[in-house]
Amino acid sequence: MTIEKAAAIGGGVIGAGWVARLLLNGIDVSIFDPDPEASRKVGEVMKGARRAYKQMLPGGLPKEGKLTFAKTIAEAVTDADFIQESVPERLDLKHKVLAEIDLHAPANSIIGSSTSGIKPSDMQVAMKKHPERLVVGHPFNPVYLLPLVEIVGGAQTFPEAIEVAKEIYSSIGMKPVVIRKEIEAFVGDRLLEAAWREALWLIKDGICTVEELDDIMRYSFGLRWAQMGMFQVYRIAGGEAGMRHFMAQFGPCLKWPWTKLMDVPEFNDELVDLIAGQSDEQSSKWSIRELEKIRDDNLVAIMEALSKQNKGKGWGAGALHKDYTKRLATLAASTTSKAAAKSKATKPVKKIVKKPAGKRG
Amino acid sequence: MTIEKAAAIGGGVIGAGWVARLLLNGIDVSIFDPDPEASRKVGEVMKGARRAYKQMLPGGLPKEGKLTFAKTIAEAVTDADFIQESVPERLDLKHKVLAEIDLHAPANSIIGSSTSGIKPSDMQVAMKKHPERLVVGHPFNPVYLLPLVEIVGGAQTFPEAIEVAKEIYSSIGMKPVVIRKEIEAFVGDRLLEAAWREALWLIKDGICTVEELDDIMRYSFGLRWAQMGMFQVYRIAGGEAGMRHFMAQFGPCLKWPWTKLMDVPEFNDELVDLIAGQSDEQSSKWSIRELEKIRDDNLVAIMEALSKQNKGKGWGAGALHKDYTKRLATLAASTTSKAAAKSKATKPVKKIVKKPAGKRG
Repeated sequence: MTIEKAAAIGGGVIGAGWVARLLLNGIDVSIFDPDPEASRKVGEVMKGARRAYKQMLPGGLPKEGKLTFAKTIAEAVTDADFIQESVPERLDLKHKVLAEIDLHAPANSIIGSSTSGIKPSDMQVAMKKHPERLVVGHPFNPVYLLPLVEIVGGAQTFPEAIEVAKEIYSSIGMKPVVIRKEIEAFVGDRLLEAAWREALWLIKDGICTVEELDDIMRYSFGLRWAQMGMFQVYRIAGGEAGMRHFMAQFGPCLKWPWTKLMDVPEFNDELVDLIAGQSDEQSSKWSIRELEKIRDDNLVAIMEALSKQNKGKGWGAGALHKDYTKRLATLAASTTSKAAAKSKATKPVKKIVKKPAGKRG
Repeated sequence: MTIEKAAAIGGGVIGAGWVARLLLNGIDVSIFDPDPEASRKVGEVMKGARRAYKQMLPGGLPKEGKLTFAKTIAEAVTDADFIQESVPERLDLKHKVLAEIDLHAPANSIIGSSTSGIKPSDMQVAMKKHPERLVVGHPFNPVYLLPLVEIVGGAQTFPEAIEVAKEIYSSIGMKPVVIRKEIEAFVGDRLLEAAWREALWLIKDGICTVEELDDIMRYSFGLRWAQMGMFQVYRIAGGEAGMRHFMAQFGPCLKWPWTKLMDVPEFNDELVDLIAGQSDEQSSKWSIRELEKIRDDNLVAIMEALSKQNKGKGWGAGALHKDYTKRLATLAASTTSKAAAKSKATKPVKKIVKKPAGKRG
């Protein structure tokens, strides 16, 4: 199952990342973004993404999809079977944009929202025609490289829409994880916010600088979490006695002062200045573009390294990377036209028929 | 500056990890652990570490240091210039053990504690002779592979002791980060505890399983944090406008419900059963030993991948890994005896002279 024609609403860092992933998978994309700079900004992200994919695919890239800048949301979505919304995180704006998408998108299209934390139920109330096809499809930056997408359905979302969304995101090399219950910020951003909150305290209280904190992460648990998550890592830490032993040993820490920093630091100019200043000290020797290149090179190298592990089968993001690059290489090698290649390899997106009653089980 | 003779007090997962790192650097270690199984357990960790180092050093390992099991703390530390304490996290036990170490260790030795969170000031009160040489040297599991060590001094610790500790830990391939102010749990475990607390809520509330949570980490921000920390990543996310723009954009989230889970979930049997059960489902297809091997292979592969980045200079843990393996390879290649090699390459550990007055600035 693949996407025939995609639409992207919003071309910021995240929206442009989606556009890059889609185009590099040979999919045509129609984008709407009112920013007069949108074309240049998307072009720069595309340049970075192309560079990264060339490293992943030394044998050559698939023929890129065609990018069209639409003048309205209606124009962008009218013949799309997959639409990804990535506008700023304001509920009123999400409502306005999703209502417009809903009005003009084909009834059987899938609409994914990139929101980092707004509940789909709170967004789909603005959709008068087919709210059942809205899912949150929350990616991570850079979208063209990081495989995770959190899929979250709202009260009105059909289970079939979630299934189709899973297949769609998988078809462009991603790792979909369906979140079981709808909560604000889902799972990834809950964890990120918890760490971010704690980090702000540590900087504010002068325990460490942003550079020291970053070093502490990337020379220790960051290396662990690139390949195993928290629970699997702790299972090992429990030693031969496993997870139960680990929990017995470290459970009591929850009562210790280690977890006392649970309030939110006041977010004032002083804190912003402190952090922005330290960040300049750490990183101003590189431009953002240079940092992006370094980051992307590192991510590709890590995923390639992991793709050779586990007796050559690949591990975690590396196993997925192995499959993904193999699939793209096949696509690139096919001398037939894109359309012919597609008709052989894929089937069209399933229809999401709105049932008259009885929505989610 | 290198270690001539090390002592390890405690041979659990962390203590044995220290022993492995030291032995594989050609340093003799005397260990004390009252557990009758200590020798077998240390042997297994050593086997895993040796396996990992063989991958890092295909040209051969340096001659291993000699491991001696001491019958008492006194016997273990009596002629050591570096002593690492890794006993369970109970203040009374730390006091008892550190008092004993203090009594018998050479006056100019450095004493590092592996505690994950107890303040050094709270520990060194038990040391009657030379509390000024105690630092926290908090490592991350697996100690023989992960480079980070957080160095924390207490009220009585001499600045010189911190300097010497930095050099000592660096000499065995580690990345020391000195924490500027003493707080419980330092920096790494503050961040880990915050994420762990949030994770416990997510599992308890049925938002996701431990496997889904792990996948969410390792297919997204885990890949980012293996090479850049939180602040550098967010700087890039801010796009061309940088850190200040990022803060302005995401600062307000701190007031949203995304951060509402700040209480600590009750740590009861039900929660332990839920998590241990899900962990079995996720991982019981591998033994702990198999998981350790997979983890170690992945870590070596990630560090090697990063060692080739940044125009061949290596990046982050990869740059350090490059230096470390080069140094070990040189050590391995030297045909002269260990003693002769050392006398050429290194100078003895600096003396920490206890000043009569005026401790820390």
